[in-house]
Amino acid sequence: MVSRLPPGEAFYDVLHRRRDVRAEFTGEPVDDAVLHRILAAAHAAPSVGMSQPWDFVLVRDLATRQRFRDHVLAERAVFADELTGERAETFSRIKVEGILESTLSVVVAYDPERGSPAVLGRHAIADAGLYSVCLAIQNLWLAATAEGLGVGWVSFYREPFLRDLLGMPDRVRPVAWLCLGPVTRLAEVPDLERHGWRDRLPLEAVVHAERYPEEADAATRRIASAERSTSASVVDQFDTDTRR
Amino acid sequence: MVSRLPPGEAFYDVLHRRRDVRAEFTGEPVDDAVLHRILAAAHAAPSVGMSQPWDFVLVRDLATRQRFRDHVLAERAVFADELTGERAETFSRIKVEGILESTLSVVVAYDPERGSPAVLGRHAIADAGLYSVCLAIQNLWLAATAEGLGVGWVSFYREPFLRDLLGMPDRVRPVAWLCLGPVTRLAEVPDLERHGWRDRLPLEAVVHAERYPEEADAATRRIASAERSTSASVVDQFDTDTRR
Repeated sequence: MVSRLPPGEAFYDVLHRRRDVRAEFTGEPVDDAVLHRILAAAHAAPSVGMSQPWDFVLVRDLATRQRFRDHVLAERAVFADELTGERAETFSRIKVEGILESTLSVVVAYDPERGSPAVLGRHAIADAGLYSVCLAIQNLWLAATAEGLGVGWVSFYREPFLRDLLGMPDRVRPVAWLCLGPVTRLAEVPDLERHGWRDRLPLEAVVHAERYPEEADAATRRIASAERSTSASVVDQFDTDTRR
Repeated sequence: MVSRLPPGEAFYDVLHRRRDVRAEFTGEPVDDAVLHRILAAAHAAPSVGMSQPWDFVLVRDLATRQRFRDHVLAERAVFADELTGERAETFSRIKVEGILESTLSVVVAYDPERGSPAVLGRHAIADAGLYSVCLAIQNLWLAATAEGLGVGWVSFYREPFLRDLLGMPDRVRPVAWLCLGPVTRLAEVPDLERHGWRDRLPLEAVVHAERYPEEADAATRRIASAERSTSASVVDQFDTDTRR
């Protein structure tokens, strides 16, 4: 099999340039028309039974963002406490959010009652509606990338906290807090790879013919990935060399 | 707010042309290089803690697909039994899968052990890994659209059946069965809208400022959507007029 670009070169370029942004937000304004295109892209996602079970709450209010950030920093500490040794040290260098530095936040929520009672295609898989919401998130992320903006998905939070913060009813599930806005650049290498937290798997490790791989293969795959983490300094060099 | 196209015109065109395909598959072959680009696009998706917890099983074997299709048809009947009156009649006209007509199937699975024990960003939200798998699915879907192929997500199945069919271990969760291949066309209007099953919500109904909407608003929104279903014949006409 061969390289990854043409024919839809510009299209693939967006998919591969997309990054999860933490440190590069500038805080500059986002044009209303641009924001509309991005949200329309999210809303054009497929959904089970065409239920479109998503809501997008645009949070610009600084007090709300500050309260969320305080919560995220507390949860960051909870995660840090689970780590020891090299993992703890590596994690201490990783920025996990850009909530105040980004221009605005988009909170994406899932309403399981949308389209009920009989959502076509959901009777056998309760989570199918949740999946739809994620597809909308990826559309949003890619559209933002196409527009030259950055997105950062913050997941260091407890759902009940976020539900309370934005006044969501109990049945509604917050699925993502996305930071959005102009950026100085999109990193060539993902932050977690650059910091030596984890390496990307080769495509061949996750594509299989006809059946799921035997457990022995899967174990090898996990070990191979862990071992590659030791080569993080090479990745750092690569990133320095190719920084745009 | 304004219209949806430029600047990344071609990019948005892909997002808005994408359809969930059932009837339009031709069964023609898919070039290996094209398939590779599509899978590489899926694998370029963001993932929590860079865990990349997805696997893609390419199913071409006709016997496997036939067994899956029989199961889907049985589940279709289960869903049909829940319906009465107009809903039952409308559903009877809707094709729910193109498993045998499409060129191949891509089964996407979630392995929660990938990157364990400490997946950065998943300690507070157990489903964050599942979300990542969905983002990869949307990348795959969009890349296929950019390549001129169609994708159909079949969700009329029980997860244990599919797990057994492909030999997945118990901890691994099948997330999607995707039919993939060349199509005669991508429909202008989604099947479920064309058949009068459900209408698309206006974007304004799902975008909110600062806080989640009050319940009164949400109820209105659902009623408005249900009422619009009666105008399905107008949609049919639109579809006929704009068929490409």
